[in-house]
Formats: sequence, C-alpha cells, structure tokens
Amino acid sequence: MVEQEVREKAQNAREAARRLASLSTEVKDRALLAMADSLIKSTGAILGANEEDVRAGRDKGLSRSLIDRLLLTPERIEDMAAGLRAVAALPDPVGETEHAWQRPNGLQIGRRRVPLGVVGMIYEARPNVTVDAAGLCLKAGNAVVLRGGSEAINSNRTIAAIIALAAEKAGIPKGAISMIENTDREAVNVMLKLNGLLDVLIPRGGAGLIRMVVQNATVPVIETGVGNCHVYVDEGADLEMARAIVINAKCQRPGVCNAMETLLVHRSAAGELLPGLLEKLKEAGVEVRGCAATRELVSWVTPAAEEDWATEYLDLILAVRVVDSLDEAMDHIYRYGTRHSEAIVTGDYARAQRFLREVDAAAVYVNASTRFTDGYQYGFGAEIGISTQKLHARGPMGLKELTTYKYVVYGEGQIRS
Amino acid sequence: MVEQEVREKAQNAREAARRLASLSTEVKDRALLAMADSLIKSTGAILGANEEDVRAGRDKGLSRSLIDRLLLTPERIEDMAAGLRAVAALPDPVGETEHAWQRPNGLQIGRRRVPLGVVGMIYEARPNVTVDAAGLCLKAGNAVVLRGGSEAINSNRTIAAIIALAAEKAGIPKGAISMIENTDREAVNVMLKLNGLLDVLIPRGGAGLIRMVVQNATVPVIETGVGNCHVYVDEGADLEMARAIVINAKCQRPGVCNAMETLLVHRSAAGELLPGLLEKLKEAGVEVRGCAATRELVSWVTPAAEEDWATEYLDLILAVRVVDSLDEAMDHIYRYGTRHSEAIVTGDYARAQRFLREVDAAAVYVNASTRFTDGYQYGFGAEIGISTQKLHARGPMGLKELTTYKYVVYGEGQIRS
Repeated sequence: MVEQEVREKAQNAREAARRLASLSTEVKDRALLAMADSLIKSTGAILGANEEDVRAGRDKGLSRSLIDRLLLTPERIEDMAAGLRAVAALPDPVGETEHAWQRPNGLQIGRRRVPLGVVGMIYEARPNVTVDAAGLCLKAGNAVVLRGGSEAINSNRTIAAIIALAAEKAGIPKGAISMIENTDREAVNVMLKLNGLLDVLIPRGGAGLIRMVVQNATVPVIETGVGNCHVYVDEGADLEMARAIVINAKCQRPGVCNAMETLLVHRSAAGELLPGLLEKLKEAGVEVRGCAATRELVSWVTPAAEEDWATEYLDLILAVRVVDSLDEAMDHIYRYGTRHSEAIVTGDYARAQRFLREVDAAAVYVNASTRFTDGYQYGFGAEIGISTQKLHARGPMGLKELTTYKYVVYGEGQIRS
Repeated sequence: MVEQEVREKAQNAREAARRLASLSTEVKDRALLAMADSLIKSTGAILGANEEDVRAGRDKGLSRSLIDRLLLTPERIEDMAAGLRAVAALPDPVGETEHAWQRPNGLQIGRRRVPLGVVGMIYEARPNVTVDAAGLCLKAGNAVVLRGGSEAINSNRTIAAIIALAAEKAGIPKGAISMIENTDREAVNVMLKLNGLLDVLIPRGGAGLIRMVVQNATVPVIETGVGNCHVYVDEGADLEMARAIVINAKCQRPGVCNAMETLLVHRSAAGELLPGLLEKLKEAGVEVRGCAATRELVSWVTPAAEEDWATEYLDLILAVRVVDSLDEAMDHIYRYGTRHSEAIVTGDYARAQRFLREVDAAAVYVNASTRFTDGYQYGFGAEIGISTQKLHARGPMGLKELTTYKYVVYGEGQIRS
C-alpha cells in the first residue's frame, strides 16, 4: 500500500513532467505567483495544521531546536510566499541554447537546456522546504515528488495541497507537485529504487539521512551536505583581516555546512594571532580545542583529539592547529576535509594561487569567509542545496542545476558514411 | 584478498589523482605520446598475450563476434596508438574558467574546470577500451582504475603494464593508471562501493553489465548505453531523403546504440514509401516486423509483437509502425524510447520545431540520421561513451564530461553580514 501511493504519485509526476517541459515561462511564473497568494490566504489553515505537528512534537519530547525548525508563524509563511515570488522573478533556464556549432557536413548542433524531469526531494522537519523545492522545481520545468519528515506531516500535507491546487488552477499539469502522505519509512525506500520514474533524488537534512540515501538509492542522487571547512592563516597574513574572517566563518552562523570547523595557523603567525583571537572566540561562546603548539600559546584551550580534525561540529566549537607550511596545511585539508569550502588568508601571490589550484573543494577562497558558499551570495537568486559530490553539480545549486541538456540537431538529409 | 587489491589500487589512484590535478598539459601530452610509442614497440608482447586470450576464448566456445572483439592485430595496435596521439592533440579542458563574475561586495567568483579525480571503468571484452579510457582519463587529469572482462585479462594486463610504465617514466604519478588483475566477479562488487576512493564509475558494455552497476553501485555512476532509437517519417516528407536516412540509420552499423530500431511512418506517406523501402531493406538483409497497416502494404513483413516496440535489436531487424499523426509518433517514442536519439524527417517547419522541443532524448534530429550521435561526429575529438542518464552529462561524452568544476573566489577580506 505504501508502494502503491509512491508509485502512483511518481507515475503522475512523470506524466505531468512531459507536459511541464514545454510550458512557457509565463505560465510557470503565473503559477508561482498564484501559489504565493494562496499560501498567504491560507495562513489560518497552515497555522492550524502546524499547531498539531508542534503539539505532537512536544509530546514526543523533540528538542527545542527541532521544534523551532518545525514551527510556522505568519511571518514565516510570508517568507515562503516571498520566496516563490522571488523565484518567479528569476530568468528561466529552460530553452537556452548555451552553445551551437556547425559541422563540416553542414549539421547544425545546439546544446539546449531542458528540465531534468521528475525530482524526488527527501527532507526532514522544515516545512518551508516543501514550498522552496516545489517552487524551484516548477520554475525549472520539473515535476516534484516531496517526502518530508513525519514530524511535519500535517503542515506539509496542508501546504502541498494548497500550492498544488493553486498551480493546477494556473495551468500546471495535475501531479506536477505531490507529497507522499504515508509517513512510513518504507515510502523512502520505495522512492530510492524508482528508476525510470524519478530522474534524480535530492536528500536535504542531516548526515544520517544523506548517507542512507546515497547508500541505498539506485536512482541518481545529488549529495548535499557535510562541510568540514578550514581557514588557513598563512605566514605574513594581514592579521586583522585574518581575525575578522575567522570570527565570521566560525560565529556568524555556526550550525550550517559552510561554517569553519578547524583553524590552521602558520607557526610564524600563531604567537601574535592566537592569544587575542582565541580569547575573542571564547568571549563569543566558542569552545576551543587545540594542538600542543596552540595549548602552549593559550593555556585554557582543551586538547584536540584525532577525531576533532574530522568532525563537523555545526556548533560553537573550534579545532585549532599550528602548521609549519602551506604544504602541511593543504595536507591536513586533504586528509580531513570534506571538499566543501576552504579558505586561505594570505598576502603572498604565489601561495594564494597554489591554494586555489591544489585544494580540491567545491569552493576555494583567498581572503574571504567560507560562509559565502551559498546560492544567494553567489548571485544565483536561489538555492536548492549545496552539492558536495563531483558529478552534475558542485557547490551551490540554483535553477540551472535543476536542468540537464539535449542536443538539438538540424539537418538537410545528412547520413553517415 | 580481492578486496585488498582493489582498495590498494584505488587508494594509490587517489593519491596519484591529487598530484595529477595540477600537472601541466605539456607533461600529460608528452606522457600520452610516450604511451603510444611504447604500445607500438611492444606489439610482439601484446600479440602474444592476446593469443592466449583468443585461444582460451575458443576453448571456452566464445562466439565468433566475441572472439573478433577480443582479437588484436598489428593494425589494431596501431589504431590504439593513433588514438592516444589524437587525444594528446586535443585541447586540455582542465583549468579553463568558463564564467567569472563580480559580486556587489567585490568578491570575484570564477567557475574553473578541474578533474573528477578517480574514475572507475568497468568494461567487457574489448582490449582497446583499456587504452582509450586510460588516455582520455589522463588527459582530463583523472586517475583511472580499470576493470576489463576476464576474457581479455592477458591482453589487458600486458597493455596496462606497458602504458602505465610509459606514463610513469614521462612524469605521471605512479598509480594513475592501474588495472585490477583479479578476474573474480567480487572485484567489481568492491569497486561499486568504494565511495571516497572512486569519484565516478563508468560501465561500458552490454545492457546486463550496465544494469548490474546501476542497481548495485553506491559510487555515482554515469549510465551509458541502451538506445531504442526511432525515425519518424512525417506527412509530406521528402521521401527520397527519408529512404536514405532510414537505410543509413538501420544498416550502416546495426550493432551500435545509435542505430534505428523502429521506423514510424505517417499514414499518408506509408503507401508510397514502404513497399519500395522495405524491399530495399530486405535486400540489405534486414528482417522487417510490422504493424497491421504495414503488413497490408507489404505482405511479406512478419507481424510485430508488443515487445518488438521495446526491443533494442542491435541487429539487422527493424520494427515498422504506421501512425496517424505527429502526436501518435511522439506518444510511441515517449512510451517505448530510451531517451537516446530520435529523428523526424519532415518538410514542415512547425512540426520540426515541435519534435525538437517535445521529444525527450539526449539527441533529437530533423532530417538527419540517428547515427550521428557520437563524440567524433559532434566534433568533440574523443568519446568515452554516450550517456543515457540526465545527471552530469547527456549524449556523447568527450574530455569535458570527464571533468567537474570548482568555484574559485578572490576576496579582499570580505566577511558575511
């Protein structure tokens, strides 16, 4: 029965995707605006459904931060609607011919952007993902099958019904936006194997969810997530700049994947930089775990264990290590990094270029905070997630990353000899 | 023990990949030329090893076509060497910044092409794939772990040793090209799960191999292969052009994925087109299986069963169906096609544009043979395979499709507020 619901929705999504692919931008944008209006008009119903989820969450003893993620307010509903309007205002990637050329035999070949088809979104407790994902998928011409966490099921079901109906009234094929209502874990397992019906799975949530999807899916997956990011302060770096970047990368929003988890400092800069900087971090509530050299300079720092170098804290905790060279810093990043975002603070041209070239990560920075790895900060106008894999898309993914391409070939009777 | 060999080679490949990523084009090209020279010089040794494989294959009763795929000759070795030289002559995709822009805060962001890392190639009985894959992966800055079919193990082992040694002498890091020597099936199973060591798997071979890899891999896969391709001859099409395209798409090389498997003909063109055309195909050795309307026009045609529409024959067999409209043709393609290559022959502008827009396939053609879906025909100068999936790459894959990108960000102390 679980399987039946999932298959049926995926099948309907596939049929809808076929027609969605040739819909005009105008129709899609009108639908996005209608969805936004409909969310605002249905604020009461959404808050009511959300209240049930929050009450059930409290009864189950969910943590305060989980309850906070779950909780909707009129402002948060306005934000979701504003998000849809912003997506409507973005350029449509579908139909763009990025490159076209002519072959010696006269064939005209063009590479044209087209939708992926059907996207399966698997996520956890944030009901706003329901709206974000539906809006971005629709704009890129994809149908979407949504599967949110069971904690948010009432909110998600209500929201999905509202936006799907608004979209349909505005001319979007029925089935283009659907939500799996069965909260059984088995529903996810069915989605993971729906090759032929789903074109891609995008898991969004904690490391456990993502690992489970990667390990078990036969449908292609875009892996998002884990960021064990580093800032390396080089010999001779501008220490004032270094301080500002380190504090920003650690403290501005510690719970996200592009926050710094380990600070690497060249030995020659450590004596002047660390005592004052670590004191400031401590004042900001950061727990600091350091290597022996760090602890010689700052006695209150607790010792870092091997596992600290490999941990994505997602919290106000920082590991600190003193290194003897750029090479040692890059070796550390190679060994422990997760290929997400890595930064060097330096005044040296050659070392800046080496760091950019030799560090393998979705984003590499000179003299800027790792916190910039973000679709909005990069100017994409949207973000469906940050890819940490190398296939298809790497780093922040916007609308274009929700599309693929096809080769369109104009001939005049050419045959192959 | 199998696991140990595979892990060790993948681990060495990963280490090699790190250094390979920053090697200059010059060094890589010199290595490719040295590999080519070394193949030619070792012709005797390669033919000797190949003889063992061919003898063992005959003893095992392999089919003549399999033995032919396995067999090496001095000419075939020269072709392999020529392939490496051609790859050396191609532009290097690595290091190209495709797009760069500045943000309002002054950050300079560039999207720079970088190697994928470590490619796992899993293939069957053709020893030339060993050379092709190694050459293309090397040029794109990737390490490669090769796993060929057990039938070709002596040839592959000898070839891989020769080219790996030549590459190493020319300055390529040890471990960049390696071949799994254990012919146990288990070796493939180990490769499928080597997340963290292998960045991508590319299976090349029959539908069974590819399905097995897609179904069981946790490492991301680029699916290549199955092509159930159609040519649709529209109402009012130039029938002489249609005849040439149909014969070319079916007969020029029937055993490959971009050959046509089903011919769709508009009812108004069927009477004039089919009798003569099917006669010609019959003379060329093609077995024709048709719908009822086709058989009314050409009595010797055998009836097509439902499964014929879904079959990739890879042989001199053709299914033929008469349809009443472009929509019926596109519905047929949607239902039975494998999203590989689809062609319309038409003189009508609007229907040509509709076909290009609405048919979902890696390559869509107006008035040209489906046989053009090929990296060389598209002008890529190389081909590692033809992707039939939508993530990462679609259609013919050249050197660029063996790379990914990273965002390179130049700052002046920017932090996020």
